Amino acid sequence: MAVYTQVSNASLNAFLKDYDLGTATSFKGIAEGVENSNYFLETSKGRYILTLFEKRVHEDDLPFFIGLKKHLADKGFPCPRPIPARDGRALRTLEGRPAVIVSFLSGLSPKRPRLAHCRALGAGLSRLHADASDFGRTRPNQLGSRSWPGLWEGRDADADALQSGLAALIDQDLAAMSAAGLDQRDLPRGVIHADLFPDNAFFLDDSFAGVIDFYFACTDALIYDIAICLNAWAFTPDGQFDRVKGAALISAYEAHRPLSEGERDALPAFCRGAALRFFLTRLIDWSDTPADALVKPHDPLDYAKRLAFHRTAKTAADYGA
Amino acid sequence: MAVYTQVSNASLNAFLKDYDLGTATSFKGIAEGVENSNYFLETSKGRYILTLFEKRVHEDDLPFFIGLKKHLADKGFPCPRPIPARDGRALRTLEGRPAVIVSFLSGLSPKRPRLAHCRALGAGLSRLHADASDFGRTRPNQLGSRSWPGLWEGRDADADALQSGLAALIDQDLAAMSAAGLDQRDLPRGVIHADLFPDNAFFLDDSFAGVIDFYFACTDALIYDIAICLNAWAFTPDGQFDRVKGAALISAYEAHRPLSEGERDALPAFCRGAALRFFLTRLIDWSDTPADALVKPHDPLDYAKRLAFHRTAKTAADYGA
Repeated sequence: MAVYTQVSNASLNAFLKDYDLGTATSFKGIAEGVENSNYFLETSKGRYILTLFEKRVHEDDLPFFIGLKKHLADKGFPCPRPIPARDGRALRTLEGRPAVIVSFLSGLSPKRPRLAHCRALGAGLSRLHADASDFGRTRPNQLGSRSWPGLWEGRDADADALQSGLAALIDQDLAAMSAAGLDQRDLPRGVIHADLFPDNAFFLDDSFAGVIDFYFACTDALIYDIAICLNAWAFTPDGQFDRVKGAALISAYEAHRPLSEGERDALPAFCRGAALRFFLTRLIDWSDTPADALVKPHDPLDYAKRLAFHRTAKTAADYGA
Repeated sequence: MAVYTQVSNASLNAFLKDYDLGTATSFKGIAEGVENSNYFLETSKGRYILTLFEKRVHEDDLPFFIGLKKHLADKGFPCPRPIPARDGRALRTLEGRPAVIVSFLSGLSPKRPRLAHCRALGAGLSRLHADASDFGRTRPNQLGSRSWPGLWEGRDADADALQSGLAALIDQDLAAMSAAGLDQRDLPRGVIHADLFPDNAFFLDDSFAGVIDFYFACTDALIYDIAICLNAWAFTPDGQFDRVKGAALISAYEAHRPLSEGERDALPAFCRGAALRFFLTRLIDWSDTPADALVKPHDPLDYAKRLAFHRTAKTAADYGA
């Protein structure tokens, strides 16, 4: 929730000269996005979001992310459309940072998703998977199951500092994930969003209105994206799983693409793995963020609570599937 | 530069039911404003800014601030217009905070004001003073010259920690201000903005496009507002006074309201006093802000440098008047 890179008006005006967007009439930093700097930009031609990519995003990945948004927008999927400059390139440089202008997407993110949101999100996610299926490009999931042991290495004291005995539980989770062999299963794969939390989804009057922030998108098992969403959308604030919300999300997804037997079998393991992935990266952010940082890291314990549920879940039915 | 109070969609929707603004189609926290939480709000009727007042603003002052913006907007002065709810009241409550919706004002704030901005700002300031002259309400300047000794009390060690020997210089400044008797002079008075820094002024193509953030506005000597602007607009980033910019600002102001002899005589003292006021409040923020705060305080030394110039200035001509 911050703006890291300041943009002078002179730089902005020079930058806009390469576009057919007219001149800037409003420019405001948005308190949104943890990884990048985002600005609301209004010009004589319309409203846009200007994103400057900060150091946590790898420049080599940007053509994948921007190409994906263009592909989805071309299909009519509601997401920000990258706006090319006159030379046809959307990815450019501003204040020494990679930068892109995208179209402004209307909609509001639910702070506390209700049942209707979960249902609409499930349908939106399946549409995203379908529309991205012929994107053509691939990107490995750098935060997939193979990365988890490395993320955990040397963090046991940090985990126990958060909650006594937590490190031993995480060790168990990692052993279970290794035994489950998530990356060795023959499951439907494709482009996944991989970070579809409520603040990355827009709604208008409870209707799905679009998705933003594709900067973790990658190629992986589609069921992993569903597992991430179940973690992000179908738990109560105090960490209890809401099976009604889970069922709504899954059944709305399945209305467009029914899950295979293999995916149903794998769902509990992927849900536990997804919770582990967010626990681990939040633990790292929590432990490594200086106390005076501009951005407050998420509490890793939110995901420790989810892991506690996943350790008890046995079948897809436990998630409402 | 932060959003302090989170607004749930349910609260926002309930809040908007009291207005004739339709339903929200976009709602984004803005990384702007140090004192309050600001949101970009788009509804089916148009674009607005929603402000939630945080604890540093006194609720008793809000009718003055909101009434002033309405008065100025009614006169055609470019500033955000408070939008009343159906019951006619613009000042309301949201998430337990006083809240107001104002119209969206186009324009960009210059990060580094150029000469054209200083000239346009001088003209805009004189227009603000003229349009506010029949506002009718008054509000004492709580950060006026009488408050400075109290702001300084017990802060000498903080000042010397910033720059060795600074406390003795600030003692001299306060003695000089006391001798100058700023509040005993018979000078033109009226509503002043009192915080018209570049980030509170909007421009479109170098033309003055408006003023925001009236939450320090009060009744005081008009020359004090000019002195604040000279400090905020006509110094180089390294703290040197730019007499050409100062002259442009003052002469553009005087095109609408020539300064009296008394005001010209008082200008150097008011410029020194204005710098002292911002030095003192920044020193307090600097010393009292916890290291892990969301908002980084401004560096008080920027205003210590300005004070060094003001100690040498003798006449209005030294400021380009």
